[in-house]
Amino acid sequence: MSAEPRSRTPVVDTDIHNAVPAGALRPYLPARWRRHAEVFGSHTHGGSLYPKGSPAAARRDAWPPSGLPAGGDLPFMREQHLDHYGIEYGVLNCLHGAGTQLDPDYAEQLCRAVNDWQVAEWTDKEPRLRASVAVPYEDADRAAAEIRRVGPLPDFVQVLLVARSAAPLGDRRYWPMYEAAQDVGLPVGIHFGGGARGVPITAAGWPSYYIEDHTAMAQAFQAHVVSLVVNGVFERYPGLRVVLIEGGFAWLPPLTWRLDHHWRRFADEVPHLRRPPSDYVREHLWVTTQPMEEPHDPRQVLDVFAHLGGTDRVMFSTDYPHWDFDDPWRAFGVSLPEPARQAVFAGNARALYGLAPAAAAVGGVGA
Amino acid sequence: MSAEPRSRTPVVDTDIHNAVPAGALRPYLPARWRRHAEVFGSHTHGGSLYPKGSPAAARRDAWPPSGLPAGGDLPFMREQHLDHYGIEYGVLNCLHGAGTQLDPDYAEQLCRAVNDWQVAEWTDKEPRLRASVAVPYEDADRAAAEIRRVGPLPDFVQVLLVARSAAPLGDRRYWPMYEAAQDVGLPVGIHFGGGARGVPITAAGWPSYYIEDHTAMAQAFQAHVVSLVVNGVFERYPGLRVVLIEGGFAWLPPLTWRLDHHWRRFADEVPHLRRPPSDYVREHLWVTTQPMEEPHDPRQVLDVFAHLGGTDRVMFSTDYPHWDFDDPWRAFGVSLPEPARQAVFAGNARALYGLAPAAAAVGGVGA
Repeated sequence: MSAEPRSRTPVVDTDIHNAVPAGALRPYLPARWRRHAEVFGSHTHGGSLYPKGSPAAARRDAWPPSGLPAGGDLPFMREQHLDHYGIEYGVLNCLHGAGTQLDPDYAEQLCRAVNDWQVAEWTDKEPRLRASVAVPYEDADRAAAEIRRVGPLPDFVQVLLVARSAAPLGDRRYWPMYEAAQDVGLPVGIHFGGGARGVPITAAGWPSYYIEDHTAMAQAFQAHVVSLVVNGVFERYPGLRVVLIEGGFAWLPPLTWRLDHHWRRFADEVPHLRRPPSDYVREHLWVTTQPMEEPHDPRQVLDVFAHLGGTDRVMFSTDYPHWDFDDPWRAFGVSLPEPARQAVFAGNARALYGLAPAAAAVGGVGA
Repeated sequence: MSAEPRSRTPVVDTDIHNAVPAGALRPYLPARWRRHAEVFGSHTHGGSLYPKGSPAAARRDAWPPSGLPAGGDLPFMREQHLDHYGIEYGVLNCLHGAGTQLDPDYAEQLCRAVNDWQVAEWTDKEPRLRASVAVPYEDADRAAAEIRRVGPLPDFVQVLLVARSAAPLGDRRYWPMYEAAQDVGLPVGIHFGGGARGVPITAAGWPSYYIEDHTAMAQAFQAHVVSLVVNGVFERYPGLRVVLIEGGFAWLPPLTWRLDHHWRRFADEVPHLRRPPSDYVREHLWVTTQPMEEPHDPRQVLDVFAHLGGTDRVMFSTDYPHWDFDDPWRAFGVSLPEPARQAVFAGNARALYGLAPAAAAVGGVGA
């Protein structure tokens, strides 16, 4: 563990992964779907997880002595993560893959179970945690219904989609989810991962290595940003806010430059866009930091923030308990100016997710 | 046309498109394949061309009075482009789609015809022009044979691939082409476009609009860069040089940052890589300028060049006669320092393609 700094800034961690221990969802599933889980089990066209030797892609030290999976033991998470780093709030993104299930009824039931389990086992028990709504994202009407069912609860601060979907996420098939998210006032997070359903995971087909798979995830995020903007999602749902989680973001300014340039020439094709694409990106998109692309010269991080138009849409995240965890005490190779630092570590996330500053913050990151 | 500047720097234009007029390849095709062209014609899974109203995606003013297609009339190209802008050398990238043909024998024969036609009708007639070798790129053994057949001719300075291939271009199926290119000493250019053969053109599936298609081309380039590097192509072929043509490049530094970061963790998976991915990129990759991503603040172009590690692998291109042509007299929103400007407009391309500075350059771009 890293050395504790002298002075502190509160930390809102916008990407913590709570894991579902074996059998934990059973009490939350109707009997018919408990049987389905026993007889048929999971059926997805899933992605690849790394590393296999450390299940759930977790840090080796994040496996709790209880025998529960990494991210599956709340008391251990409290001690190792929330208390240790002085996390003011943590946003749970449960990557159980419920929404990735091919059987649409099972996907729906499993998402409901995950959400009910999150309230009962996590947010009810730990006031620093908030959860993201698991949704059967390839079945947008049912996903919308689930957003309307649990989204209004104070336990939830976000709707959770994944980057590898069956189509670019601006496609109209997905719009009912955006309408529901806007109606209940929740941002939509798009997280690294997902099932892809046969869509090659690079824009040039299937790659050979996991490092290509992992690196190409940024391409899926790029496709979604373009798709959401040019399909007019933000014109249709002006209150919609989207968070790119674990997708990096240094690629975002070049993408908006390219897209603005094309828009000046292709505006006739997309007359539903009333403003340059970069305007929608600036207003409707947030990003999380882990895993931030790290320039060889760390000062170039400041160029990237300048290209983004500032740090007001950048939110710190750790990805706890995954292997590629970012330590709040060591994140960023450079010092950010003080107001930006506080905004990135806490202020931006508080504002987006509607979290009040904790009265007496304990811990946090040093100045 | 733009106002002519006072002083001049020679221009090497690294991306000019010569077009094949109707019937022009007939004399270069064997009788059996002339019949095939008449009876079966083109059969590809092709991409989308824009705009339809101006065939061959050309500038409206680039259609020659002769009635030949834009880019298909050498005397007109000389007057409108080579003479007007004082082009010292131009690299022809003929996008006839010969290599995209599904019938492998037809693809091979059509590529041979395109190459023989380029020598007879272009490079033999105009000393400022050099051509790229058309190859049946999905059939690497035959592509390699064509590279060995015509690559040694002084008419050719490059092997031409396209960004939308059936697989990422580092895949071993493509390696015979790289061996041949290395052997004959030619760089391999990867140009915007291609047939994709059913691979969705974004990493998240099929998009709705042409603006998405056009913007997503950068994703295909990203996939190829990662694929070439991590499949060890540059370890296997240390003399291989690759040019990314019309793919932009502001996305390249973030990609190499991301990839280096992953490589530090996934090195075990790709033990054939002996150095960080960015080393291979720095040594083996060149980029052309059109269409460069243009930041809203033009000075940020200089950040992008700094992130790239300098301008020594950046080569100016116009994309003549296409609609998204870059005017040499207006390119770049900022002034480059003088040595960099000369390198980008001429020096880098001369060095890569082995072109001697013309004794008495006429025209060029102003200081």
